[in-house]
Amino acid sequence: MTTTAEPRISARRRATRERVLEAASEVFAERGFHGATVEDICERAGFTRGAFYSNFSSKDDLVLELSRRHAEDLVERIRRASKREHASAEDVLRDVLTAMADDTRSKERWLVLTTEFTLHAIRDATARRAWAAQQRRVRDELVAVVDEAVSRQGLTLPLPTELFVLAAIALAQGTLTQRLVEPRSLSVGQLERTVLPILLGVDT
Amino acid sequence: MTTTAEPRISARRRATRERVLEAASEVFAERGFHGATVEDICERAGFTRGAFYSNFSSKDDLVLELSRRHAEDLVERIRRASKREHASAEDVLRDVLTAMADDTRSKERWLVLTTEFTLHAIRDATARRAWAAQQRRVRDELVAVVDEAVSRQGLTLPLPTELFVLAAIALAQGTLTQRLVEPRSLSVGQLERTVLPILLGVDT
Repeated sequence: MTTTAEPRISARRRATRERVLEAASEVFAERGFHGATVEDICERAGFTRGAFYSNFSSKDDLVLELSRRHAEDLVERIRRASKREHASAEDVLRDVLTAMADDTRSKERWLVLTTEFTLHAIRDATARRAWAAQQRRVRDELVAVVDEAVSRQGLTLPLPTELFVLAAIALAQGTLTQRLVEPRSLSVGQLERTVLPILLGVDT
Repeated sequence: MTTTAEPRISARRRATRERVLEAASEVFAERGFHGATVEDICERAGFTRGAFYSNFSSKDDLVLELSRRHAEDLVERIRRASKREHASAEDVLRDVLTAMADDTRSKERWLVLTTEFTLHAIRDATARRAWAAQQRRVRDELVAVVDEAVSRQGLTLPLPTELFVLAAIALAQGTLTQRLVEPRSLSVGQLERTVLPILLGVDT
């Protein structure tokens, strides 16, 4: 019995987690990380606080899980684009830049939440450690993707891959932030689309 | 009488403004933009709310004034470094990068405050317009400084000057943010120090 019962419980638990995460994502977008309370999120998801706390330990925990999924999805799209067979460096880079700038609306929501969480992490040592560890994992994955793509295309980076990845992240976040304050000052993905080809010596 | 009395009032008024701005800068650093209240700032400065409101219209007004001064100081330091006579492009760029990365502690405090204010501005149309106008002025000044320096050194930028300036800002903010979350992941000014020389074709 346990062998069949367990997956059933897991599936229900998974469904609960999904609903809470979806509700959290909406409530964070509407009220901000600091403005949103666990009560708001429970109410939106239609769950009790008990159900919440049997799945997540805190609001921080929710952001970390949302962030993990968002990053996993982004890294996977970049990896797929970077692995296109029989394609020129120009075509691959163009596809990767498109993958990076995809889904602008959800990215903007995302940028606001992670910026709020970064400010929180700067002031809270536990959140900072968790946030740093998660960003390091994402960075390591991206470094591997870039190293493989660069070597497949016979390119040479004029800077260490980790700095290239950090620069790409800074430029992408810079474009998003700038567009939120001055929508007409930059087009979607413009800074990374302009600077990364120069660093790679690839004409897009 | 008015001709001598007026400057006296102005001087007192100026001193009041200075004291309020200094107090605001401290209180923002301790409690954050949202956490700090006008009462906290008045108490720190030793002024009444009346004295505050005869000098500033709101907390937003304080951040905009602090930001204007910070930016003016930074642009001036960059301008001076970029105008060094009889210096090679390498030396000038090294001096400009040093000017950009100067005074890291106050820059970190600064980054946190402007990031908080940017999040506020994204949600508040009045703050956003004021913030966008101020950033545009700073950007225009930096574009003029870069154009002059690039032409004096006989260099050619591989991207429009405005995008170069926005990229430089994104990289500098990226380094600062990254260092606040993971102090050992980057050295002071590392992203801008690595990427900008490549864009300029200058070996530092």
